Amino acid sequence: MNYVKTAVCVKCGAEHEATPNLTTCRKCGGILDIRYDYDGIRSSLSKSSLKERDDFSMWRYKEFLPVDDAQLAGGVSPSGLRVGWSPLYKADRLAGQLGLSALYVKDDGINPTASLKDRASAMAVAKAKEAGAKIIACSSTGNAASSLAGNAAAAGFETVIFVPERAPKGKVAQLMVFGAHVISVKGTYEDTFRLSAEAIEEYGWYNRNAAINPYLMEGKKTVSFEIAEQLDFHMTDYVAVSVGDGCTISGVWKGFTDLYQAGLIDRLPRLISVQAEGCCPINRAIAEGKDWYPMEENTIADSIAVGVPRNPDKALNAIRESNGVTVNVSDEEILQAMRILGRTCGVFAEPAGAAGTAGVKKALEEGLIPSNASVVSIVTGSGLKDVANAMKAAGEPVSIEPSMEKLREVLTL
Amino acid sequence: MNYVKTAVCVKCGAEHEATPNLTTCRKCGGILDIRYDYDGIRSSLSKSSLKERDDFSMWRYKEFLPVDDAQLAGGVSPSGLRVGWSPLYKADRLAGQLGLSALYVKDDGINPTASLKDRASAMAVAKAKEAGAKIIACSSTGNAASSLAGNAAAAGFETVIFVPERAPKGKVAQLMVFGAHVISVKGTYEDTFRLSAEAIEEYGWYNRNAAINPYLMEGKKTVSFEIAEQLDFHMTDYVAVSVGDGCTISGVWKGFTDLYQAGLIDRLPRLISVQAEGCCPINRAIAEGKDWYPMEENTIADSIAVGVPRNPDKALNAIRESNGVTVNVSDEEILQAMRILGRTCGVFAEPAGAAGTAGVKKALEEGLIPSNASVVSIVTGSGLKDVANAMKAAGEPVSIEPSMEKLREVLTL
Repeated sequence: MNYVKTAVCVKCGAEHEATPNLTTCRKCGGILDIRYDYDGIRSSLSKSSLKERDDFSMWRYKEFLPVDDAQLAGGVSPSGLRVGWSPLYKADRLAGQLGLSALYVKDDGINPTASLKDRASAMAVAKAKEAGAKIIACSSTGNAASSLAGNAAAAGFETVIFVPERAPKGKVAQLMVFGAHVISVKGTYEDTFRLSAEAIEEYGWYNRNAAINPYLMEGKKTVSFEIAEQLDFHMTDYVAVSVGDGCTISGVWKGFTDLYQAGLIDRLPRLISVQAEGCCPINRAIAEGKDWYPMEENTIADSIAVGVPRNPDKALNAIRESNGVTVNVSDEEILQAMRILGRTCGVFAEPAGAAGTAGVKKALEEGLIPSNASVVSIVTGSGLKDVANAMKAAGEPVSIEPSMEKLREVLTL
Repeated sequence: MNYVKTAVCVKCGAEHEATPNLTTCRKCGGILDIRYDYDGIRSSLSKSSLKERDDFSMWRYKEFLPVDDAQLAGGVSPSGLRVGWSPLYKADRLAGQLGLSALYVKDDGINPTASLKDRASAMAVAKAKEAGAKIIACSSTGNAASSLAGNAAAAGFETVIFVPERAPKGKVAQLMVFGAHVISVKGTYEDTFRLSAEAIEEYGWYNRNAAINPYLMEGKKTVSFEIAEQLDFHMTDYVAVSVGDGCTISGVWKGFTDLYQAGLIDRLPRLISVQAEGCCPINRAIAEGKDWYPMEENTIADSIAVGVPRNPDKALNAIRESNGVTVNVSDEEILQAMRILGRTCGVFAEPAGAAGTAGVKKALEEGLIPSNASVVSIVTGSGLKDVANAMKAAGEPVSIEPSMEKLREVLTL
């Protein structure tokens, strides 16, 4: 049973049938939002029926997902990889250090290709199957690309991935290991994106470009279902997440509103939208109470260095609807958060993954959230994705000759 | 309830009380093995009682572990991190490519610090707690070190980790992010190991050096419990794993023999011991029917580049007892296995992690195992740990100007 009713344009309100290969609004080009029959979901799903399920992956919440039961039969996920059900750690020592009542860290770096984007890419694979596609394409140099390449490979799809020439070799290597057809484009990211769009149009490949395909967010929102269930449906006051394109924070909000509409949680958290000081067009729009406009991309946190966000509408709606808090963090604050997360939680985050936690710290220091608040901070990707910045965060070890005398001199324990 | 009976020296048979800070045999220096009351376990644990447990981590199998219930109360693991319950993928397309009846891939790169070693380090943390230690130490440059640093940080322990000066900066960065006290030793790995041993002796730190601390293997063996349960206790004919120090294959075997002795599986798999051609002292000893002797360390698979294995006795016993198969693979075969795993399974393995699968392929080609066999291949660590070798495995992408004409020329789909 699939509870999808329709797809509605966020800009003009036009309704579209929720076909598997849906992209943007045919009338105005706006982003679509998938709508569900919440009464139907409410009548078939309860906290206790959830508890009895033995699928510990994002597909656990199938009533809220735009995928037919047939694809979820036999306990095998549509993509073949086990995505989701990442751990939610109660971070008491970190909370103590920050002077916060309660803090939880959701480590989404523990996903098959080491980022939250696996949730979106696994969904893309599921919908590509329904659409009868054989090839899935996107343009990206980051987690969207590697998660698509991995999930598609596991499911037997071919992928075509467009990257700008400047893409780091390590990231390209990951794509190549997954067998993607990687097209390195001699040009800017905009050139790359445009070529991918043209090619997808001409060849009819399944489109996994963020903020074009409305189903991706439906995958991302599963992170919120898990957070709620792992909290036994007692929501925290706030949920912090880093923001680039705006798709992830929109997905996070969609997950909570889904649960609220189906009666599974009785209050909604406020979002803490964290951007980099050097690249914060969405938070700036909120602060100025105006529309967004482009900004430089000046931050080490490459996964959220998005000066022209592709999903600003949904992101701005989400922050405003949740009565959210916005906070911008410096690169130094991000590096510090990487150290703090590592040292108090054993969680190794990439810069964009640690930005949420940097934002919680700063929001607290600036009095934007009270110290008696409870907060979930989502870590969106693993630090192994970006060892160069980990080195910046971590500092150098003590170097000595192999002798006990030298060791005694330098030990500071 | 804890079913540990005693600790027995593998070399001289001397019995020792299983105290938390146990190291090697006080009589002969041999490696100890933890022994259990299997009748007790059998009376309290069954397949169906296991099925009802909601702890999806290595601690799910508490009756087989040398840890008191008090440490496992409240569903929180002793180390604080969620270690284990990694996915077992049925790799049908890979099996088809290899011409094998049934192949499963156990992806242990999906662990908090991205390797199987998390199982050992989480156990070290649990035992350090029981021992009342505050500081845990080891010498390593690889997965043992990063997993110790991460698990100890999450549990609030200090760590002192000795690395040789030549340790890759990226790996050191990971340790530093986790807040380890990293001592970079100007000397060889042997110098480093000796200094760590002296310092552990002098300062009384808890010892997490592999093949010294007998509890580490008790953590590693949980990978086999999971494999068996994920196969619904119908064991495959073979289980393949890469071999360096010998601790992991010994742990894998211990897990299966534990289950067999407790009546949970009715047959034991044969081990496929995979080493690198350029460093295979253990497989050479099996092949020659003699004792092992040192060998050069000539392979890209750094995690198994161990010319002087520290746990040869248990490893040789395990391979012989299981009527095991040995196979040595070249670096080129390892790189090829990285590509095959990525392309058919969406699993990104480090070289040592892919070596097991390379071994399955070669064993099949050489007629060492029959094509109608069923096999589990354990991937011991994530490819994100070693991007440089991933680049070697993956090849270069096609590079073009941003135009559809150029794209049409190069597309080979």
